Amino acid sequence: MFCPVIELAQQLIRRPSLSPDDAGCQALMIERLQAIGFTIEPLNIADTQNFWAWRGQGETLAFAGHTDVVPPGDISRWINPPFEPTIRDGMLYGRGAADMKGSLAAMIVAAERFVAANPHHRGRLAFLITSDEEANATHGTVKVVEHLMARNERLDYCLVGEPSSTAQVGDVVKNGRRGSITANLTIHGVQGHVAYPHLADNPVHRALPLLNELVATEWDRGNEFFPPTSMQIANIQAGTGSNNVIPGELFVQFNFRFSTELTDGAIRQRVEALLESHQLPYTIEWKLSGQPFLTSRGRLVDAVTNAVEHYTESRPELQTTGGTSDGRFIARMGAQVVELGPVNATIHKINECVRASDLQLLSRMYQRIMEQLIA
Amino acid sequence: MFCPVIELAQQLIRRPSLSPDDAGCQALMIERLQAIGFTIEPLNIADTQNFWAWRGQGETLAFAGHTDVVPPGDISRWINPPFEPTIRDGMLYGRGAADMKGSLAAMIVAAERFVAANPHHRGRLAFLITSDEEANATHGTVKVVEHLMARNERLDYCLVGEPSSTAQVGDVVKNGRRGSITANLTIHGVQGHVAYPHLADNPVHRALPLLNELVATEWDRGNEFFPPTSMQIANIQAGTGSNNVIPGELFVQFNFRFSTELTDGAIRQRVEALLESHQLPYTIEWKLSGQPFLTSRGRLVDAVTNAVEHYTESRPELQTTGGTSDGRFIARMGAQVVELGPVNATIHKINECVRASDLQLLSRMYQRIMEQLIA
Repeated sequence: MFCPVIELAQQLIRRPSLSPDDAGCQALMIERLQAIGFTIEPLNIADTQNFWAWRGQGETLAFAGHTDVVPPGDISRWINPPFEPTIRDGMLYGRGAADMKGSLAAMIVAAERFVAANPHHRGRLAFLITSDEEANATHGTVKVVEHLMARNERLDYCLVGEPSSTAQVGDVVKNGRRGSITANLTIHGVQGHVAYPHLADNPVHRALPLLNELVATEWDRGNEFFPPTSMQIANIQAGTGSNNVIPGELFVQFNFRFSTELTDGAIRQRVEALLESHQLPYTIEWKLSGQPFLTSRGRLVDAVTNAVEHYTESRPELQTTGGTSDGRFIARMGAQVVELGPVNATIHKINECVRASDLQLLSRMYQRIMEQLIA
Repeated sequence: MFCPVIELAQQLIRRPSLSPDDAGCQALMIERLQAIGFTIEPLNIADTQNFWAWRGQGETLAFAGHTDVVPPGDISRWINPPFEPTIRDGMLYGRGAADMKGSLAAMIVAAERFVAANPHHRGRLAFLITSDEEANATHGTVKVVEHLMARNERLDYCLVGEPSSTAQVGDVVKNGRRGSITANLTIHGVQGHVAYPHLADNPVHRALPLLNELVATEWDRGNEFFPPTSMQIANIQAGTGSNNVIPGELFVQFNFRFSTELTDGAIRQRVEALLESHQLPYTIEWKLSGQPFLTSRGRLVDAVTNAVEHYTESRPELQTTGGTSDGRFIARMGAQVVELGPVNATIHKINECVRASDLQLLSRMYQRIMEQLIA
């Protein structure tokens, strides 16, 4: 049986699009979208290929995704070459099958069917596609969003095709993500010989009460959708390696995964107030990887929930756990953002695969979301 | 003017005895001691040359020292080649001039003068000399002491020729040394992703209350002769380098410099009780570098004080600070142990030197100590 979703997914997998190389995936998607009346706006920035495409006008539902994949790892351990898609026991194998060329194929075919059934749809259907989500993500979705915001583009709903599901397609939907910020903290002391501690100033000793307080702090209690903000010391280092030298500096790197109860500014302020209260000579550098976002309630969550229930007869669980995604950038436009994609059990692994029938189901869900929001 | 102390010091400096190579120094000393009736017992162990020498019998005063020197460093920065002793402005330059070939020469000449004046001295005069004090010190004094203890040799007083003085010869005398013990502690956790802290167990977080308590602990208050025991964290390390990985293990290395109020066993016990009370999964390895020793009062301290006062008209300060010395091994024999040697300002440095007249003075002090204790 010929299935257009599986067929397109295979065509995409055959293009070895290691970040940020698109390897022709977007050309394929653009050709299909142009054929059904989409306007295409390529937005290639530095080494990254992006496009924004739209059809119709008014209230806007965008599908977002990436054509790039992570490296295949040891190719000899794959049951088929990673860029030669193979179906075996109902599973489609290949790098990107689950993350996220399967979703891209499901979106395109859903759009084709939706447009065929609703040539004069009420709202606007759009696509926001990048070739760098897996690597630096600096010239991808974030730039497209800045570009769209600069001209006040409207974006009401965004469905990100990231593989959100855990056991069966649609069992988990992400309606938000935690923020992530990292501190690189150096506590300055005075190096010396352990036999003469009065001539030195051990930065480890000085920092311990601070670190102890930092670790014991309750940053927030989370909320209905988010677990409490979590702080983890990822790296700590001091010393010359010798057992008779008092170190001159202590380096501590810690990362926050924070809920919408906090902002990066509030975190910085609280940590720095703690540092000041301990009167430590310090240097701190902050790196914000992503703001938290949340789509708590509304038409998009309702439409996604309805679509999943319609095809699986069970209600999806709304989660905000896990790492970050490009959803963090799109949420800045004020859009409702939800992630719905296939089962993520094999993503980034050897023998990445997805159930072929899940992609067909996913495409139907995507189409039903379009119908509810912009038909 | 010919001075036998300076002459012998120069002969010793000319022999480049980098640890544990004696380079003929001991042969020179043995020749001189044999000439005045000493019995010589060579105790060469592995790469290290040692000897024990004695004259007379009864109450025993031993002079202890080492013939080895530390490497000269960048020879081009020396004003004279390091193994070609030179006198300039009254200072004798050369590697080992202060640490401690000058002392060895002063001891030998003092013994010659003492024996000439007291051929039938009442007690026993002895020498305990090694060629490895500066490097590993594993086959040196510690082995000679074990050998002597095995046959119940008597050792009442021991004068170690380490450079104890700071501004003028005899201003500081060491009548003890702190002990040194190092702990290599590993706290075991479970590695994981910072986004999923409930699946991991951060050993840094778990260890902080313990480390905080360890650093805040008062181990003792020292005593009349010792400063309080000091604990210093010398090295701490955890993390993979990535900001999104919770480390699986924390390594902490800390060193104690401890007074005679404590023992290594008591320290181990207290640290391990603290570890148990925090219920941490840990592994700990201990390395004892030296037990503390103290010669608080008695005939040796009196004789040394008298000798210094006689020649300098000022009273020496008794100190127990600084690193460890071979005195820690000799003290095990139950002997009173005191360190008296030249000014240590240039030891282990480029252009090591000692005031020539200080060596002459030191030799007179050594002789006066012999006269007070065993004449």
